[in-house]
Amino acid sequence: MRKTLMAAALTSALSTGVAAAADTPLGLVIHGGAGTIERANLSPEQEQAYHDGLRLALEQGYAILQAGGSSLDAAIKAVTILEDNPLFNAGKGAVYTWDERHELDASIMDGATLNAGAVAGVSTVKNPILLAHKVMTESVHVMLSGAGAEHFAAEKGLEQVDNSYFNTEFRYEALKRMKAAEGAVPHQAAVVRDPNWQMGTVGAVAIDSQGNLAAATSTGGMTGKRYGRIGDAPIIGAGNYADNSSCAVSATGHGEYFIRYQVASDICARVKYQGVSAKAAADTVIQDVLLPVGGTGGVIVVDAKGELSWSFNTPGMYRGKIGSNQPALTAIFADD
Amino acid sequence: MRKTLMAAALTSALSTGVAAAADTPLGLVIHGGAGTIERANLSPEQEQAYHDGLRLALEQGYAILQAGGSSLDAAIKAVTILEDNPLFNAGKGAVYTWDERHELDASIMDGATLNAGAVAGVSTVKNPILLAHKVMTESVHVMLSGAGAEHFAAEKGLEQVDNSYFNTEFRYEALKRMKAAEGAVPHQAAVVRDPNWQMGTVGAVAIDSQGNLAAATSTGGMTGKRYGRIGDAPIIGAGNYADNSSCAVSATGHGEYFIRYQVASDICARVKYQGVSAKAAADTVIQDVLLPVGGTGGVIVVDAKGELSWSFNTPGMYRGKIGSNQPALTAIFADD
Repeated sequence: MRKTLMAAALTSALSTGVAAAADTPLGLVIHGGAGTIERANLSPEQEQAYHDGLRLALEQGYAILQAGGSSLDAAIKAVTILEDNPLFNAGKGAVYTWDERHELDASIMDGATLNAGAVAGVSTVKNPILLAHKVMTESVHVMLSGAGAEHFAAEKGLEQVDNSYFNTEFRYEALKRMKAAEGAVPHQAAVVRDPNWQMGTVGAVAIDSQGNLAAATSTGGMTGKRYGRIGDAPIIGAGNYADNSSCAVSATGHGEYFIRYQVASDICARVKYQGVSAKAAADTVIQDVLLPVGGTGGVIVVDAKGELSWSFNTPGMYRGKIGSNQPALTAIFADD
Repeated sequence: MRKTLMAAALTSALSTGVAAAADTPLGLVIHGGAGTIERANLSPEQEQAYHDGLRLALEQGYAILQAGGSSLDAAIKAVTILEDNPLFNAGKGAVYTWDERHELDASIMDGATLNAGAVAGVSTVKNPILLAHKVMTESVHVMLSGAGAEHFAAEKGLEQVDNSYFNTEFRYEALKRMKAAEGAVPHQAAVVRDPNWQMGTVGAVAIDSQGNLAAATSTGGMTGKRYGRIGDAPIIGAGNYADNSSCAVSATGHGEYFIRYQVASDICARVKYQGVSAKAAADTVIQDVLLPVGGTGGVIVVDAKGELSWSFNTPGMYRGKIGSNQPALTAIFADD
């Protein structure tokens, strides 16, 4: 079946004049956040639940690639599934703001055209990645925020939910623990917090039968966030970048560092201008640039040749990959 | 006087163990927006008013550098003066949103530390660049937005004004013309508009006696904007980047392209990884990358050696520069 569909994709590509890369392997890499994820803190049942959630996203995203679908559609499918899974900090299961609500961010980028879409601070759109995609495809803008973004979502008929849809008991407990840890002083913008309160994002990068790359990222942001804080997930170049001439990257980590160091686009720039591999560029940025300054987190990467990789400087990152040349693999800890 | 102050700065630098670059020329470059700026549309009096506004910002910013002050303080001073000048689309004189209000964005970056601060969608802070600076220096965050950013501004005691402070008659007329041009159909996110409605930003880049670079950018955004649209001005890497190891850039133009093409950080990446000059990198990105895809606008740049330059692909850009080796120069049209 795979061969037939590849042939069909090739025919379709040739008939439209697009140069098909018939020998490009298909591939999909996903992540569900990086941080202090340690065996001692996860029960075997919890571990299994994370593996199951990652595998479902991998398999359903990859099915789209196998059927000749685009890397964009595959990345969106994988991220939508992770958004719908309450275990991950995006969509259902998003962390709580200081005011005990949820404000969601997402972004998407098409490596073939460098088109991009992003939304920040939305609170009633069930799947923020679908809204980011609508911003990319049905608006002349790249980034919409807050109530304006929700107005656009309503115009486009996206599924809207009450903010309480995103509630989960374990995230509410996390907010209460965080508030207790900060004592009587409410979170202030100058307080440096445990980096683990600042992390948790989902993302996907993919390469399709046309050799096109795509990246998608979605998050609930940081526990207890205030001040309309925007992290790296909706910032094109920080939490997300895709360019067929280099690579596609989705990031997760301490967002402020990922913005300042332009993590996603710097990895692509190193591939493009230094001629290094995407894996080498990712390792350099994550391990040699970010780690020494305290920028914790990780990235998933796919390059134009279809190499699938990741790099992270935390004890764990929920992650998985699958491709033409490799079966589905899911992993959690650094030594997995 | 200059020599005495340089000597004082040198002594101070040596006493604190900072390596002073005593032979680095001081420099400041500013812009007040790029677009279809043509002689036929400006009276001699208007031309003079723009030159005067640019010169005031240059001189007051440069005085800080001459007194041994930092590139950050010089850039902030220049941008504050442009924000206060109603001729430019930032602070007082900001364009109107579709709802006949003003929503302001700004960002700042310190090339010595890669610290950065940005605000999006603020409506009651008199000088948004001062708020971006507070975000950089007095919060652990990089980017704050909307009401949350204003709450932070109030906590920090920044001057706040009623939104009507930003009103100007000529910007209101521009909104009415824009609405009339769009006919009975209100602005929709899918409507491609005259690029000139999307431009207008102010910015400054500087190098100080320590050889430190800084970039600052501020804007009222695009005339008639809706949907909480965020442009490139507050996006670190798009409208603003500064890194002592390469260059400092402030951009102005059709923001969506500047985000997708990572204009500011791509110029710095080319300097860093390709070894080209900042001027050459800026020309490549503005003329060879952006222009062919319709991305209109420009940038101002200063590199680590103190070379001051700009590049733009529009008929004009309000701009000026001054440095140790060059007297103040202000210009408007491409052939100035």
